[in-house]
Amino acid sequence: MSVREAGRVSRVVVTPVAFRDPPLLNVVGVHQPYVLRTIVQVHTDEGLVGLGETYADQAHVERLEAVAAALPGADVFDLHALRRIVGETLGAATGGAGASFGGMLEVSSAVDTVVSPFEVALLDLQGRATGRPVSDLLGGAVRDRVPFSAYLFYKWAGHPGHEEDAWGEGRTPEQLVEQARRMISEYGFTAVKLKGGVYEPRHEFETVEALAAAFPEHALRIDPNGAWTVETSIKAADRLSGLLEYLEDPTPGIPGMAEVSRHTDLPLATNMCVISFEHLKPAVAADAVQVVLSDHHLWGGLRRSALLGGICETFGMGLSMHSNSHLGVSLAAMTHLAAATPNLTYACDTHYPWKTEEVVKPGALEFSGGSVAVPKGPGLGVELDEDALAALHEQYLTCGQRAREDTAYMASIVPGFTPNTSRW
Amino acid sequence: MSVREAGRVSRVVVTPVAFRDPPLLNVVGVHQPYVLRTIVQVHTDEGLVGLGETYADQAHVERLEAVAAALPGADVFDLHALRRIVGETLGAATGGAGASFGGMLEVSSAVDTVVSPFEVALLDLQGRATGRPVSDLLGGAVRDRVPFSAYLFYKWAGHPGHEEDAWGEGRTPEQLVEQARRMISEYGFTAVKLKGGVYEPRHEFETVEALAAAFPEHALRIDPNGAWTVETSIKAADRLSGLLEYLEDPTPGIPGMAEVSRHTDLPLATNMCVISFEHLKPAVAADAVQVVLSDHHLWGGLRRSALLGGICETFGMGLSMHSNSHLGVSLAAMTHLAAATPNLTYACDTHYPWKTEEVVKPGALEFSGGSVAVPKGPGLGVELDEDALAALHEQYLTCGQRAREDTAYMASIVPGFTPNTSRW
Repeated sequence: MSVREAGRVSRVVVTPVAFRDPPLLNVVGVHQPYVLRTIVQVHTDEGLVGLGETYADQAHVERLEAVAAALPGADVFDLHALRRIVGETLGAATGGAGASFGGMLEVSSAVDTVVSPFEVALLDLQGRATGRPVSDLLGGAVRDRVPFSAYLFYKWAGHPGHEEDAWGEGRTPEQLVEQARRMISEYGFTAVKLKGGVYEPRHEFETVEALAAAFPEHALRIDPNGAWTVETSIKAADRLSGLLEYLEDPTPGIPGMAEVSRHTDLPLATNMCVISFEHLKPAVAADAVQVVLSDHHLWGGLRRSALLGGICETFGMGLSMHSNSHLGVSLAAMTHLAAATPNLTYACDTHYPWKTEEVVKPGALEFSGGSVAVPKGPGLGVELDEDALAALHEQYLTCGQRAREDTAYMASIVPGFTPNTSRW
Repeated sequence: MSVREAGRVSRVVVTPVAFRDPPLLNVVGVHQPYVLRTIVQVHTDEGLVGLGETYADQAHVERLEAVAAALPGADVFDLHALRRIVGETLGAATGGAGASFGGMLEVSSAVDTVVSPFEVALLDLQGRATGRPVSDLLGGAVRDRVPFSAYLFYKWAGHPGHEEDAWGEGRTPEQLVEQARRMISEYGFTAVKLKGGVYEPRHEFETVEALAAAFPEHALRIDPNGAWTVETSIKAADRLSGLLEYLEDPTPGIPGMAEVSRHTDLPLATNMCVISFEHLKPAVAADAVQVVLSDHHLWGGLRRSALLGGICETFGMGLSMHSNSHLGVSLAAMTHLAAATPNLTYACDTHYPWKTEEVVKPGALEFSGGSVAVPKGPGLGVELDEDALAALHEQYLTCGQRAREDTAYMASIVPGFTPNTSRW
């Protein structure tokens, strides 16, 4: 393994890309034809390049560009300085990061989401310089492989006006069982998550029951993204408690989740009411959730996500991992983080099977038995395919999307559609 | 800066040492003639040596020796493996670490205290290999200098049977003002802490008032180590609230501290009722303390202390730093940790001025203006003086002490003495 100087940041390249995505349904609408992501390349004066990946709605890309201009000269080990630079660069304009999440989430500051890809890139650089995998820089891998979960979606057969995609329609319990069967067969997943919040609750309960009957050995979860009332959530917990390992975000908000929690022993998980450090104190005080889904894109990078892990351990909460649609740079970062987080005992979410395009060279990250082996090479362990990056950037330029807008896209197809939040 | 392979642990040397200490008074008795510490040297197969420092009561040294025998082969970057090795080595015998603290504290597991010096040594090794100061490995120094606090003690003029020490008697408010004046003159401290719990409260209040009158620009604190009842603590808070930046451990236990807290706006600090991660949840729930004193010796090393810092920030508590009597290896570790902890905004405690013997080569750590410059060289930035180490180890062998026993030593001089805990 070669060991060398990391150097200082000399240049940062921010590249928005777009990759094709099936019409996956959720509480706020439906996935658009393309997922927007940004690939960040941080160069140093010692000739190294570190990689990061994040969201790519227009406002976010503009913030990334501003930080990219301010970062040259920074020490790749000085992560606190990165945070300071981001704060100073964003200045007062730190609000409104919610667009990255399709309208589902709102965080009060953009600092954590803007820091994240640069922090990952600096850790990648530290690893490349010291000859160490990123997991070593986070305290060492406690597992050689990181288990992920199958992530099922209700879906249309294809985007309107386009031909049917390879997965076909996913509407009935039988179709979702078939979707799960194919995903498990190809990836080996031992846990299965169903994205709900799309149909009336009874239909989604029946889907869970069909999945449980078909896969009695698999750990099951459903996440309706807050589509249900407290009353419906309590009924769901009663009906499904023997089938689920946790129930994710049945209803919106800390008070609502706390009320559901008081009525069930089924662990409640969240990626909606606790998505920032400021939410932890009120959530703990209310005993609103028993499992927090980490997400390094949202929580400010890998070290801040490790902090979240330590907080969950200290306050007696479980830890799982959330996913948005992502490419291989993020999958590598998620894998290193999960490997180095001892109390991350649930299989992590990933949208990976839905993806048909990629920016990293193949071979570094392969699924087997539902898990990914932690790369043992320096840094994240992935390399960009420059041709693929250029092609997906070109696709970004021509696709016409500049933000994630699940609701507007759905309303363009189903006139009058509004999100299902607390609908049932 | 040279950059090289760190290698794997090849050999660990555990050396208990003893250094002279004045008769400093506290709630459980008086400091013995010698402070016992252990210096840990972790060697790697690449020829590097990393340093750590910890307590040295007999039971603790035996645990350190057991871990030292189990550690060879470990990767210096695998801090999670260190924790696993310590847990496995201690097995069921993890309780009763309290003796290290003179009878004042009790923690339910020895794992954190045993991990600590090895973790510091591994971080020192990581820094030596990568050419980076330990503060960089903790996310980067956010300050170039770390402010420390003067630490005043009531004291006898000398140990019974020995001649008067250089500081003389410290009993009256006037004598403590003089002690502070000398310490401030020599070190430049801008904060002053008085160790109380020795005399009846009115005498200690008057000492604080005399210090406030003599040093109106200095930040003041008093720490009676739980010598007072809740009622007395509330009176103390009323009387001293305009003079103190915080009141440390006026009364024992989370419920007592919470009761005091409900009656005052003066921040309450602790190094007694919150000294382990398991204490954080109940302390937060009770709003028992507003400032937690970190201590990497007690909390499991530098990274676990950084976690504590993140928890304090997340849950709206302030962060300061505790000290036991220590040598230069610990001072270096404390300085790097404090430099890399953004929300450590209080001056750190240190017993450093009371010390007349040392094991590290001079020059790396100098006080100026009450603060210590963060070493910029690789690792901790301190080197052992092998002759001094040998001499202080010889002193350990001959001094006759094998544990910290403030109460027994006091009782040997003042027959019938028992600790002052909740006495007044």
